Amino acid sequence: MHIRVLGSAAGGGYPQWNCNHPNSARARAGDPAAPRRTQSSLAISADGRDWVLCNASPDLRQQINDNDILHPREGLRDSPIKAVVLTNADVDHVAGLLNLRESQPFAVYGTPRVLAVLAANSIFNVLNPEFVERRPLALDQPCALARRDGSTLALTVTPFAVPGKVALWLEDASQGDNFGTVDEDTIALEVCADDGAKFFYIPACARMTEALAARIRGAALVFFDGTLWTDDEMIRDGVGVKTGQRMGHLSVSGDDGTMAALGGLGIARKVFIHINTTNPILIGDTPERRAVEAAGWEVSYDGMAIEL
Amino acid sequence: MHIRVLGSAAGGGYPQWNCNHPNSARARAGDPAAPRRTQSSLAISADGRDWVLCNASPDLRQQINDNDILHPREGLRDSPIKAVVLTNADVDHVAGLLNLRESQPFAVYGTPRVLAVLAANSIFNVLNPEFVERRPLALDQPCALARRDGSTLALTVTPFAVPGKVALWLEDASQGDNFGTVDEDTIALEVCADDGAKFFYIPACARMTEALAARIRGAALVFFDGTLWTDDEMIRDGVGVKTGQRMGHLSVSGDDGTMAALGGLGIARKVFIHINTTNPILIGDTPERRAVEAAGWEVSYDGMAIEL
Repeated sequence: MHIRVLGSAAGGGYPQWNCNHPNSARARAGDPAAPRRTQSSLAISADGRDWVLCNASPDLRQQINDNDILHPREGLRDSPIKAVVLTNADVDHVAGLLNLRESQPFAVYGTPRVLAVLAANSIFNVLNPEFVERRPLALDQPCALARRDGSTLALTVTPFAVPGKVALWLEDASQGDNFGTVDEDTIALEVCADDGAKFFYIPACARMTEALAARIRGAALVFFDGTLWTDDEMIRDGVGVKTGQRMGHLSVSGDDGTMAALGGLGIARKVFIHINTTNPILIGDTPERRAVEAAGWEVSYDGMAIEL
Repeated sequence: MHIRVLGSAAGGGYPQWNCNHPNSARARAGDPAAPRRTQSSLAISADGRDWVLCNASPDLRQQINDNDILHPREGLRDSPIKAVVLTNADVDHVAGLLNLRESQPFAVYGTPRVLAVLAANSIFNVLNPEFVERRPLALDQPCALARRDGSTLALTVTPFAVPGKVALWLEDASQGDNFGTVDEDTIALEVCADDGAKFFYIPACARMTEALAARIRGAALVFFDGTLWTDDEMIRDGVGVKTGQRMGHLSVSGDDGTMAALGGLGIARKVFIHINTTNPILIGDTPERRAVEAAGWEVSYDGMAIEL
């Protein structure tokens, strides 16, 4: 299986448009230790020719330009992108669909909840329904991914619910602390190739659970939510009013953090993705980057390629 | 008045994600005569510090990164972008709003028809309504642009209807040849600075009319729809099934084309914008580029700066 990180940053990307945090300023200044990052997305492929996107970020047009594996090959209208799998309805995961206009055949997979959000927003009709088929994902049911014409992509995803939160723009304050969140709102993916290669893609997760730990124990590769270093860093750094928990993200550091939670699970490759502008692991020369690397983690970057 | 072309290409940009037309192939190969272009948008400013976007393209995050005039300056969260004026609800003109998340104060101007489209698509709620105010534009009524707090930007736009078409994704086939289009669906802007500088922004126009010719006669500067060279080029080149007329665009060449229609109007600077991947004027070494330049036109490019 071939995996390409199209984007490694959290929503807003790095630097973020209205952010003057020292991290963003370093990226904007072209500091080589602080390379720019687009918003989180993976491309996966069984054969290295036809690709499936895991999430469609608002930066997708730039990501396609920057990754020649996604350029058209044959004929006047063509794309190696044959399917898109959505893990939630966050703007940084769905808005990129608007770049895949208009009449190119592919399939979009999401939970009924996420597909309902697309259906309720007519702007997604720019994907011509005669060419783009929307297909539901059921929690915990393996789904063999297929092109628009039904032919197999030799990849199977099993979506499963993780602790999380409904997308910010869909929050219902009348529903109390969880803003009306249901299980289908935030999923992770177990991705298997027909040859047996397997990894986990968990770009948002609010809390480690026993069930999640059991599921990913001993995995060959896990991409995991690397949004924040500490739960209160956006407040402490003066760039926001929300904690990581409020946004649906477990923090990287600390006794309850991701490094501690995944440390003893025997996972061969652990890779952070969906990294926020405020997280010091973004930057190559920080103590926090050294700490995650010392703990056996990698920090993904745009263009990172993994063969499994 | 300061004007910056953020993007000069039509919807999809140049190269377009799924396009293998020889023009796109040249851009993708890095041919210096065929520089890449993002989707059409202008930034305008009276003082060179605070800016108004004319349309918000899906490439806006990249456009902000590429234009330092739009970078944050003071404080941890900041942006020189104080307002956005929308000329229609095409994906290439509104989707960029999704990049201006979440809690940054600015104002969005559009006709009631276009604002209704935003209201009907809840994804635009990612622009926090406590910070982002949507303000209606009335046809033929000068509107003094203001920041979110009401302070003046020293720029006035007068929106006026031009022959056009409702956005593709809003077409209503039951409404016959015009797909349910009304005057408010496609507007152009007369932009005036308080110091008297004035130009016209007409990124989509299906037909020259006597009223339009009278309005722009003798102007200092006109940005005009440069989508297609000939009405049937997408069909002839095998990349589409629609004529320019069907898409709401007057062609550049020919007896009924833009060059002929604007040739005798005494306009000091005539600049093509919103240029499609199939249009040979995109490329520096073509006879068509030489023809438009010989006729006194300029072809806009990403980053083009004009002082007026």
